[in-house]
Amino acid sequence: MKASQSFLATLKEAPSDAEVVSHKLMVRAGLIRKLSAGIYNYLPLGLKSIRKVENIIREEMNRAGAIELLMPMIQPAELWQETGRWEKMGPELLRIKDRHDRDFLIQPTSEEVVTDLARNEIKSYKQLPVNFYQIQTKFRDERRPRFGIMRGREFSMKDAYSFDRDAEGLKKSYQIMFDAYTRIFKRMGLKFRAVTADNGAIGGSGSQEFHVIADTGEDAIVYCPNSDYAANLEAAESVSLIGVRAAAANTLTKVATPNQTNCTEVAQFLNLPLEHTVKSLLFAADQEKGPAKLFMVLVRGDHELNEIKASKIPGMAESRFATEAEIKQACNAPAGYLGPVGVAADVTVVTDRTVANMSDFVCGANDAGHHLTGVNWGRDLPEPLVMDLRNAVAGDPSPDGKGVVDICRGIEVGHVFQLGTRYSEAMGCTYLDQQGKAQPMVMGCYGIGVTRLLGAAIEQGNDERGIVWPISMAPFEVVICPMGYDKSEAVKAAADQLHDELIATGVDVVLDDRGERPGAMFADWELIGVPFRIVIGDRGLADAQVEFKGRTDAESENIPLAEIKAKVITAVDVAKKLVS
Amino acid sequence: MKASQSFLATLKEAPSDAEVVSHKLMVRAGLIRKLSAGIYNYLPLGLKSIRKVENIIREEMNRAGAIELLMPMIQPAELWQETGRWEKMGPELLRIKDRHDRDFLIQPTSEEVVTDLARNEIKSYKQLPVNFYQIQTKFRDERRPRFGIMRGREFSMKDAYSFDRDAEGLKKSYQIMFDAYTRIFKRMGLKFRAVTADNGAIGGSGSQEFHVIADTGEDAIVYCPNSDYAANLEAAESVSLIGVRAAAANTLTKVATPNQTNCTEVAQFLNLPLEHTVKSLLFAADQEKGPAKLFMVLVRGDHELNEIKASKIPGMAESRFATEAEIKQACNAPAGYLGPVGVAADVTVVTDRTVANMSDFVCGANDAGHHLTGVNWGRDLPEPLVMDLRNAVAGDPSPDGKGVVDICRGIEVGHVFQLGTRYSEAMGCTYLDQQGKAQPMVMGCYGIGVTRLLGAAIEQGNDERGIVWPISMAPFEVVICPMGYDKSEAVKAAADQLHDELIATGVDVVLDDRGERPGAMFADWELIGVPFRIVIGDRGLADAQVEFKGRTDAESENIPLAEIKAKVITAVDVAKKLVS
Repeated sequence: MKASQSFLATLKEAPSDAEVVSHKLMVRAGLIRKLSAGIYNYLPLGLKSIRKVENIIREEMNRAGAIELLMPMIQPAELWQETGRWEKMGPELLRIKDRHDRDFLIQPTSEEVVTDLARNEIKSYKQLPVNFYQIQTKFRDERRPRFGIMRGREFSMKDAYSFDRDAEGLKKSYQIMFDAYTRIFKRMGLKFRAVTADNGAIGGSGSQEFHVIADTGEDAIVYCPNSDYAANLEAAESVSLIGVRAAAANTLTKVATPNQTNCTEVAQFLNLPLEHTVKSLLFAADQEKGPAKLFMVLVRGDHELNEIKASKIPGMAESRFATEAEIKQACNAPAGYLGPVGVAADVTVVTDRTVANMSDFVCGANDAGHHLTGVNWGRDLPEPLVMDLRNAVAGDPSPDGKGVVDICRGIEVGHVFQLGTRYSEAMGCTYLDQQGKAQPMVMGCYGIGVTRLLGAAIEQGNDERGIVWPISMAPFEVVICPMGYDKSEAVKAAADQLHDELIATGVDVVLDDRGERPGAMFADWELIGVPFRIVIGDRGLADAQVEFKGRTDAESENIPLAEIKAKVITAVDVAKKLVS
Repeated sequence: MKASQSFLATLKEAPSDAEVVSHKLMVRAGLIRKLSAGIYNYLPLGLKSIRKVENIIREEMNRAGAIELLMPMIQPAELWQETGRWEKMGPELLRIKDRHDRDFLIQPTSEEVVTDLARNEIKSYKQLPVNFYQIQTKFRDERRPRFGIMRGREFSMKDAYSFDRDAEGLKKSYQIMFDAYTRIFKRMGLKFRAVTADNGAIGGSGSQEFHVIADTGEDAIVYCPNSDYAANLEAAESVSLIGVRAAAANTLTKVATPNQTNCTEVAQFLNLPLEHTVKSLLFAADQEKGPAKLFMVLVRGDHELNEIKASKIPGMAESRFATEAEIKQACNAPAGYLGPVGVAADVTVVTDRTVANMSDFVCGANDAGHHLTGVNWGRDLPEPLVMDLRNAVAGDPSPDGKGVVDICRGIEVGHVFQLGTRYSEAMGCTYLDQQGKAQPMVMGCYGIGVTRLLGAAIEQGNDERGIVWPISMAPFEVVICPMGYDKSEAVKAAADQLHDELIATGVDVVLDDRGERPGAMFADWELIGVPFRIVIGDRGLADAQVEFKGRTDAESENIPLAEIKAKVITAVDVAKKLVS
């Protein structure tokens, strides 16, 4: 393709509302233009990258046996009323009325429509399993759209929905999708992790997210470099850092710790490692009648409480920090000096796994200005209830026993989810089993943020000069930059010929025929992030040489003109194979 | 592909709301399913045909130098207020409000957004011409959606917008699009005509429609079988049927014609050919002050007045039929006996071209129960104003002089339109010319109804058994129907092998692995309209033979198994070449 036919629209300056690097670079490189908050035009180069992403997704979805169809953008309210989502969803669901004042909405996803289709079209167990997918525009009326297309309002998503006879079948369908997603992101050449997501109200291990790894990601991910283990910080299991509790060595002692109200201060004051201290946090869960039920939750002094995990303590799903009055009643001491020894009998004490294996530890004395040292379970206070309650930290043992975990940041680009029968039961989506009995179909849903992937890839791959695309997603694989395309016959002839030859072999090449100066030309293509660049000039041609350079190479390489075609083909192949 | 992975969903019965054959067949063949009025799910086979249509369009648009981008579905009202369309358009424009109560709309087309993009991105004459296109979901809130996807509310359209420096450039861009459209519809294998459209308020010859020819089409098209001439009935020029006016032969005579109030009756009563009579119609155009201005419009007795043409008579753009009182005042006679001889002096008489060349004709006498015979222009009444005022009829001379016209019916599937500066002037979309002076860009717009094309192709191609697709649009090119796929090892082996071999050569083949009985299997694939069918059974295999049949062939042909692959490849190639 010629650059003059590609509508290049690079900019020197990023828009003032761009907070993240991908947003800045996508606008500067001429991939997108904002039309309204969270609503973007995709310029030709941006659309080219989108199509490459879509094609990889489509090929792998088809390979996995999923069947593509297309559901409408505009959907009638009635179906969403059947599942209750019409009422339950907030204003991010854009509700509209047609000319006859009937209620519709613009799809954020299509569970209702696909379930309606399945209940109409699928009658028998013989038709199951089936997995339908679409690649289609979605709309979510975000309160505060930002980060360019990473949290836009109108976006493109691949959404798939599997229908199975039973939970066993769903597990298989889910695994097939998990494997397909893994192939998809590998082919895209992205560094990514499949992470166990917190399942919230759903329960079970039925949900995983795929994150592109990037320092600027919104989510913290706990992962094991030696294995496949990865989980959202909220969901990452933390094992005990102490294998077996040591026997008590010290006596229980009350020590004065005036004005030392947190573990770090206490440890310093007592000249003990922070790891010997225990943090006591008091929560209250309001009851329908009578006073709130109180919980004392313990984590080691250097650890952070994980609130999602704490919310799973029986009775604590809906809890709050205790009030001063409640603290006084339970511990007879101000915050900063609380501890499990001698706490009121109606307070439920729950400890993190590590705390449960500590001995001779330090905690508040339930007496202002005092802490206890040499505290031991069983001797000084009853054996506690034990749960996993803390955030994982880098260096923790991996829950799968394969080394220690590290923490990185990620951008969610995919989600696989075992829905079960939530939608099929609400909508009467049943099939007749082998005994002729109606059974609800068991569903899974599987999303990939198509447009979001572009932003995520750029957050992962960029430098001070612009985008560093994986070759699978770049708008072009190779750019030919002729020095004086309109001035030198020899340069023009060599550039045109190489362009035509590369096109013929299937390389996605662009020839910069704009007649720009070299500096401006190079800057444009580095900003756009084309993986390979060939420079053809009279000086090199005199020696039958051209220059070849990878986007992140420090120096260009002189290649004989006669060998450049083979060189490019190999380089593109290697780049593609490296990433698949 | 295997049929079991294609989600076949054929039905015996068409839905009760289906009025036209394409709607019935698309539902019965399992291509679409209605979700709501004018809103459809595209099932896998329907989507496959859409993708084939999109690919042909995309290839030819790219070949014509147009540049693909993607504009949003949801567009802010502000831009549409700039051009006045926000207020001007009726309720078919679906206006919506976002969560912050701001006005948006769902795009029916994208003139405003693309003009906004152009004014922001294009600064210099050096960047022109450019032609942007998208293939994108559109929404028009039709009052009465019908005919399945032919007049749906949500539909897919290719819309392109050209920007030029001047009218000369626009003409070139328009011609390039016209040629691209011609290639597109030819490649699709459709019988079609480019027809001159009525330009309404725009004027000039800047608009043509592309119609798929089908007896069930909504529009009448006047065309010349010997040339490229074709026009909408509204726009088709009618030449005079009488080359030179003959000299007057008869004297002006008033004859009694009691109760004979139309030309057919009068001609019979007087025993004259209908072609000797003239019909006089009286119209009134209300004025701001004073009485309405009256017009007498004359067409030959066997012709129909074309109201669009009549509305172009100076002063008659907004006119109505005259009232009884006005008729009385102008002609002093009741309707049925009106004529141009002796009509009141303030009535403007305008005649169709043919009438202007008639002599010795018959018309009303402006006297109840009487007509005049032997009427001659110049002698009995003044020479008239002459215009083209009638509907063309089959057998008329073609306006291009290349024979006579015929009339057929068509379905509009494309439209090319010279917009000029209507949008660019309203939105300040200018460029700097070579003198550094700001000039409005000169625009064209070019649409193709992607989903509508499927309906139109089926209206053109169907029989009592189902759809007869052109091969370029069929969901599959070839179907392999094995007799006893699950029962005969030999049949299964031969079917699988042929399937794999055809796939490898790029033939879009489906293998029916469902285990259906032959009758049901054949009926399904004829309903779906796959162009070629191969039947493999044990009996044939015993002689190393299979059966081959084109969708519209009366009989199948026995082909040696060893030759079937070559036979299919040739048949597909021939079908594709026949249509391109």
